[in-house]
Amino acid sequence: MDQKTAGQKGAGGVDLKALVERTDAAALAEVVAELRPQELLESWEDLSFEDRVLIVAALPPDKAAELVSNLGDDEQSALLEALHPPAVRAVLEELDPDDLADALQALEEHDAEQAEAVKALLGPDVLAVAEALASYEEEEAGGLMTPEFVSLAAGMTVDQALEFLREASPDAETIYYLYVVDRDHRLLGVLSLRELIVASPSTRIGDIMDTNVVWVTTSTDQEEVARVIADYDFAVLPVVDETERLVGIVTVDDVLDVVELEATEDIHRLGAAPVDVDYARAPPWLLFRKRMPWLLLLVVSMTLTFNVISHFEGVLAEVVILAAFIPLLIGTGGNVGAQIATLVVRSLATRDLELRDYLGVLLKEIGTGLLLGLAFSVFIAGYVLLFQVEPRVVLALGMTMLLIVMTANLVGASLPFLFRRLGIDPALTSSPAITTIMDVVGLLIYFRVVIWVLGAGSGQG
Amino acid sequence: MDQKTAGQKGAGGVDLKALVERTDAAALAEVVAELRPQELLESWEDLSFEDRVLIVAALPPDKAAELVSNLGDDEQSALLEALHPPAVRAVLEELDPDDLADALQALEEHDAEQAEAVKALLGPDVLAVAEALASYEEEEAGGLMTPEFVSLAAGMTVDQALEFLREASPDAETIYYLYVVDRDHRLLGVLSLRELIVASPSTRIGDIMDTNVVWVTTSTDQEEVARVIADYDFAVLPVVDETERLVGIVTVDDVLDVVELEATEDIHRLGAAPVDVDYARAPPWLLFRKRMPWLLLLVVSMTLTFNVISHFEGVLAEVVILAAFIPLLIGTGGNVGAQIATLVVRSLATRDLELRDYLGVLLKEIGTGLLLGLAFSVFIAGYVLLFQVEPRVVLALGMTMLLIVMTANLVGASLPFLFRRLGIDPALTSSPAITTIMDVVGLLIYFRVVIWVLGAGSGQG
Repeated sequence: MDQKTAGQKGAGGVDLKALVERTDAAALAEVVAELRPQELLESWEDLSFEDRVLIVAALPPDKAAELVSNLGDDEQSALLEALHPPAVRAVLEELDPDDLADALQALEEHDAEQAEAVKALLGPDVLAVAEALASYEEEEAGGLMTPEFVSLAAGMTVDQALEFLREASPDAETIYYLYVVDRDHRLLGVLSLRELIVASPSTRIGDIMDTNVVWVTTSTDQEEVARVIADYDFAVLPVVDETERLVGIVTVDDVLDVVELEATEDIHRLGAAPVDVDYARAPPWLLFRKRMPWLLLLVVSMTLTFNVISHFEGVLAEVVILAAFIPLLIGTGGNVGAQIATLVVRSLATRDLELRDYLGVLLKEIGTGLLLGLAFSVFIAGYVLLFQVEPRVVLALGMTMLLIVMTANLVGASLPFLFRRLGIDPALTSSPAITTIMDVVGLLIYFRVVIWVLGAGSGQG
Repeated sequence: MDQKTAGQKGAGGVDLKALVERTDAAALAEVVAELRPQELLESWEDLSFEDRVLIVAALPPDKAAELVSNLGDDEQSALLEALHPPAVRAVLEELDPDDLADALQALEEHDAEQAEAVKALLGPDVLAVAEALASYEEEEAGGLMTPEFVSLAAGMTVDQALEFLREASPDAETIYYLYVVDRDHRLLGVLSLRELIVASPSTRIGDIMDTNVVWVTTSTDQEEVARVIADYDFAVLPVVDETERLVGIVTVDDVLDVVELEATEDIHRLGAAPVDVDYARAPPWLLFRKRMPWLLLLVVSMTLTFNVISHFEGVLAEVVILAAFIPLLIGTGGNVGAQIATLVVRSLATRDLELRDYLGVLLKEIGTGLLLGLAFSVFIAGYVLLFQVEPRVVLALGMTMLLIVMTANLVGASLPFLFRRLGIDPALTSSPAITTIMDVVGLLIYFRVVIWVLGAGSGQG
């Protein structure tokens, strides 16, 4: 196998499925030990659960740990349940403490008995660290950090620090950023390995460290952690507890996952599909249960359209052609509103917009809404002229379109700000929610304008 | 100023605006030189353009470069245009080559004359590197990479390599991953600084390097680069040209921006708002121009609803109450379709779903769609029973709801796959597009069912 082709992408052409079926355990162990866990994961979908258990059992514990930490909670627990406790222990002990904490938590929910058996085998030190980590909220810095950082004393020399690194290094998540702490583990400064390497051997650490350290606390929200790391282009960010003691570090690759997960959350919410399950693996009944509440809320709200239309039934009976324009008018309102809400929600999420920018957005969207409204009024007027309807109907349709588009644009631009102000995620201003609101509001506008311009059904208005 | 409070977040309470107004240039220079560029950026919005020019001019070139590289292209060019060419040169020479290439390109578009004046002052070496980088596509690995990596020869000893690092290090983007190349600059292996530090001084690099290197080429799409880095938890990824020579590296912090930008692109497309301008800064007429094409496409498609309804006008004239259910029925179809399309689009984007999974999704969504359809049929039947309508109308509405929901669910689940198959971004299956399609399809279903169940206006069907 050419190292470069294998190194590129794809599992280098190894057919894992055939391998598991044809090969005995010893030969399998030899082959899979040569592959990266990521290469195994690329063919993972093609393997049966039994094949997967065989492969995890065949891997050396460190590679098995890396592979297992990349699986979903459910599959991870199922695999750990299928292995013998001593094998599970070997794998778990190779996990990073933060992954171990997550794995133990998942295993407990999945199979409490197996979890107890495994815990009894784990070293008390390992277990204590994992349990301390498990006490933090999963979506906060405490749940994201690893306690495996390198801390130095300010009084050490560069030479002593390098010597210390050679010894302490194997367990640390990164040795490229070194934190300087006092006796009480309070953070004093930071130093990169790069600075250490180029400094003269007898320099004191305290003299070359950077004392202007950016840090977060264990309870900082993970979205905020991601923002700090992205804004400062950090590779690592230190985490302190409420007494300012250094308790962990968050690395940029943890944050990469957070950014992707947060984007998924926002996208799902914007589509009125806040489904916190893995879509690809969820069965229909589970998806039904997760999707139903939002759809039900929307459909119940949408029954208002029935109330509005039947209230103005007399108007429709007088000028039947008016009904034919309903979907076009209210649908365009929904589309305009969904479009602007999307732009505003994303700008709020990336902090390009803040609450204080609302007035500016409002003024801007009065302008944009007016332009869009006028354009679509002209469009619909031109369109209905093809059908030789009365000029007064053309006027009513043009006015309705202008008012619906402007209203939709302001509602779509304002709701995300209102939600942020109320402490609700602005992404819940979903396209379907805006569409539903604009269906009801659009009908009210339409009938009011029609009664005013045509004088139709005025007895009911 | 307490170092830790300043280190936390926020500009440490410095009121930049007041500072610029009250202070003379020398005092300003002293204060701003103490701040991190990121701290300056946090108050950037409050400053006038003139204040910003003063601050950039007052900063030492390295900090000015870091600040400028975090601004948008337009503002960057405007600032560089406002400074004297020698000051611009000083700032540009401090930029990373990839940022320099971007800055020169933007400046050329903004003010060709100033760009020429600045280029004449830049060193030929610096310029050559920037121009080589500028030749790559911006959204490919070549446009993302920096050429400032450290490469070693396999024959070096660990001691020689460390000595080389001390000298070569200042210009390199990272020295934590070291690439081993042959005479022709072809990639042979990789070594971390960590491995170098713990190895004995006389070991040959070739003996401790890892020869199984994962790499991408200059033309690999940036989304693919992000995926490789995220999947492998890499800090750095090497980039080779078509002759397999190592030409650059991509670091995880570059990828963090890519992930955020790609999420923004997907979110905008899903909201039918593929607006490639900075929303917070764009004036109304520009937003109008960018939003109009998609809305126009939707509104033109939506005129089909008018055609369908007027075609079946006789049906509505016979049973006027039927018109009152139109928005509720077709709107629910749009919401169901938008919801499932969102889930499928995101799963395709994160590679949780691939093209080959289509059949599985189809079967799953037949199941989910049936459950949702039945639930909403029962809902609408129960709802209309409140109004004492004919049982046949209840039957027609229930059947319509079932068929619309099931169809919407299948259309929303299938379109993203169709788009991926055709090489179009699945995210263009926007909620507004699905809503519009389901308005038209929903009406067709409704009238067909009504004619079949009620026999109404059968002369027209």
